[in-house]
Amino acid sequence: MTIEQMAATASPWLDGREHHAESVVSSRVRLARNLAGVPFSHRARPEDLDRVLTLSRQALCEANTLKTGTFMLMSELGELERQFLVERHLISQEHSEKSPTRAVIVGDREMVSAMVNEEDHLRLQSIQAGFQVMEAWRLVDRLDGEIDQSLEYAFSYEWGYLSACPTNTGTGLRASMLVHLPALVLTGQIDKIIHSISQMGLAVRGFYGEGSDVMGNLFQVSNRTALGTSEIDIIQSLEKVVTQVLDYEARAREILLRDARSQIEDKVWRAYGILKYCRRVTSKDVMSFASAVRLGLCLKMIDSISVAGLNRMTFMSQPAHLQKRSGKEMGPAERDAVRAEMVRSILAEEDARANAG
Amino acid sequence: MTIEQMAATASPWLDGREHHAESVVSSRVRLARNLAGVPFSHRARPEDLDRVLTLSRQALCEANTLKTGTFMLMSELGELERQFLVERHLISQEHSEKSPTRAVIVGDREMVSAMVNEEDHLRLQSIQAGFQVMEAWRLVDRLDGEIDQSLEYAFSYEWGYLSACPTNTGTGLRASMLVHLPALVLTGQIDKIIHSISQMGLAVRGFYGEGSDVMGNLFQVSNRTALGTSEIDIIQSLEKVVTQVLDYEARAREILLRDARSQIEDKVWRAYGILKYCRRVTSKDVMSFASAVRLGLCLKMIDSISVAGLNRMTFMSQPAHLQKRSGKEMGPAERDAVRAEMVRSILAEEDARANAG
Repeated sequence: MTIEQMAATASPWLDGREHHAESVVSSRVRLARNLAGVPFSHRARPEDLDRVLTLSRQALCEANTLKTGTFMLMSELGELERQFLVERHLISQEHSEKSPTRAVIVGDREMVSAMVNEEDHLRLQSIQAGFQVMEAWRLVDRLDGEIDQSLEYAFSYEWGYLSACPTNTGTGLRASMLVHLPALVLTGQIDKIIHSISQMGLAVRGFYGEGSDVMGNLFQVSNRTALGTSEIDIIQSLEKVVTQVLDYEARAREILLRDARSQIEDKVWRAYGILKYCRRVTSKDVMSFASAVRLGLCLKMIDSISVAGLNRMTFMSQPAHLQKRSGKEMGPAERDAVRAEMVRSILAEEDARANAG
Repeated sequence: MTIEQMAATASPWLDGREHHAESVVSSRVRLARNLAGVPFSHRARPEDLDRVLTLSRQALCEANTLKTGTFMLMSELGELERQFLVERHLISQEHSEKSPTRAVIVGDREMVSAMVNEEDHLRLQSIQAGFQVMEAWRLVDRLDGEIDQSLEYAFSYEWGYLSACPTNTGTGLRASMLVHLPALVLTGQIDKIIHSISQMGLAVRGFYGEGSDVMGNLFQVSNRTALGTSEIDIIQSLEKVVTQVLDYEARAREILLRDARSQIEDKVWRAYGILKYCRRVTSKDVMSFASAVRLGLCLKMIDSISVAGLNRMTFMSQPAHLQKRSGKEMGPAERDAVRAEMVRSILAEEDARANAG
C-alpha cells in the first residue's frame, strides 16, 4: 500500500466498532529491540546502521506478520510523507528525519509496523482500536517471535532485553491507550487524576506522545518502566488503571448530566454547528470541537455522527493528512479552508448515514 | 390590539422589505409637546398630571391617525408588559414606571404612538422600517396637526415649542435611524466615525437609545438639538449623515471582502451554525451572531435567512418578548433555553422558505 492510498482514508483501526471505542480511541504496544554485537543507534557508525538496516529489512519482510507490508526508507520519502507517517502514529517525530539508514515497515491494515534504527535498532509496534491493549500485545509478540528466528537480539539474563534507554530495558515494552476524558477536564478533576496515575508508576502524555500537547481532551496513558515485571503484568496493570480512570470519567459525566445538562447540551450542539458550517478551521480547533461532539455522542445527546466519523474527522484534519489527500503542499491558511471543507463533507455524509439508518 | 396579540410577532414594521432595510433597521421621529398653562411633568402636581392625562387621552383617541389605536395606562399594566413596550421601542425605560398618570397609545401596525406624561406631557412618535425618516416625519406631523386642533400647546414665537429639556425646545423633534455597521467595527474605524458624527452635531447611541450599550453592531444616530432650524432641515441633515456613514460602511465591506473574505465567511457561517444548533443563548449573543449573519446576507455569502427573519430573531429574543410569547415569567436560565428553541425554530422556518423560494 502506498502512502497515497493510505492518505485516502483514516487508519483502518479507527472504525470505532471496538469495545469502549467511544472513550478509548486506541491501544498500542511497542517493543524495543536491539541486535546483539552492534552498538546502539546513537553510538553506531554508519556501517553499523547499514548492517542493522540490511539484516532487519530481511527479517521484517520475511516475517509472516509483515510479509504483505510496505517497506519504506526515510531517505526515499518526501518531508510531507514522513510527516504523514508521524501523524499516522507509525513513526516518531525523531524518526522522521531524512536519513539513509532509517526505515519503517507497515503491515496490512496498519495494525502492525516496525521502525528500523530509531533510538533502538528495532521498534516493533501494534495499534488496535478501542480498549484492546492485550490484543495489540498478542500481535506484536507474534511479530517479535517471528523476527527472533532470524536475528539475534541483545539480551541479558540479568537485565532482559537491552535498550538504548534505561526505561526500556527489561521487557522493552511500552503499552499505551489514548483515552478521551472531557468530563474530568470540565469538572476540573483531571490534574488530580494525572497525579494519581503517575503515583501508580504510569505516565500521562498528550496526543502525539512524549512532550506533546493535550488536544481534544485526548490523553495517552502508558507504563513508565519496562523492568522487573512481566509483559502481561505491565499490560494488566495498564488495563486496570485505565479502567479505573474511565470509571472516574463516567462518574464525572454523571455529575455533569445532573448539574449542568443544558450547558453541556449547548456546548455539544454549538461545537457541532461550528464544525458543520465553518469555512476555515485549525486542526487544534477540530479536535476540540470533535471532543465536545464525542462527549455528546456518549451522553446520547446527539446521533447525527458516529465514533468512526469523529475519528476520521480528527485524524484526517492533521496537516500532512490534508496535504497528502489534496495531492499538494499548502500553507496554513489554505489548509484551514480545505480542512473546513473536508469537515463539512464528513458531517454531511454522516448526516445522510444517520438519516438513512 | 392587546399586548398578548402584539407579542405573537415582531413589530410589523420590521418586515425588512423597505429601502436599505439590510443596513438601516428602522427610522424614528418623535415630537416633544407640552400643554399650555400646565407645569412640565417633573414640576407638576398630581392634579396637573391628571388633567394632562384626561385632555391628552381625549385628543389622542379622537385623532384620526390613532382612532383605531390601543390606549394603555401604565398603572394597569404588569411589569412584564411595561418592559415589553420598552423592548418594542414604544415607551422609554423611564416611562415604564408604574404611575397612575403615565399612559401610552399605540396605533395600527405600531407605526404611530404617543406617550403621555413622560418627561414632556406628550411624546408623539412614528417608527418606520428601513431608511424612511421622512415618511416617519410625515406621519408624526399629521398626528401633531390633528392633536393641535383640540389641545393648546406650550409655544413661544421666540423659542418655538417649549419643552422640559432645553435640547428638545424649538421643534421638539428628535429623528433617529438604527443602523448596522459591522464592517466599520471589524475594521476598527467605528470610533473615528462616531467622533465625526458628533462633530457634525449628531449623536450616536446604543440599541435602546440614550445611555444604552451597543449590541449587535447596531447604532442609533440622531440629531442632538432641536432649535434654530426647521424640521425638514433636521431630517435632511440626518439623512445626509447616515447616507455618508452607510457609504463608509460599504467601503469598509469592500476592504473586508478584498483582504479577509474567507475570515468573514467563516465568521458568518460559524455564527449561523451556533444560532442553528445552540441549546441556550443570551439575547446579547443572539444580537451579536445575528449581526454576523446579517453581514453575510448583505455580502451575498448566505441566503438561508431573510432580513425579516433576522429582525424577528433579534427583537423576539428580548427578555420580555420571550416571556410574553411563552405566557409566563421565566428566570434567566429558562429564558436562555426558550430563546435558543425559538431561534432554532425561526432558522428552520427561514430555511424552509429559502428552499421553497
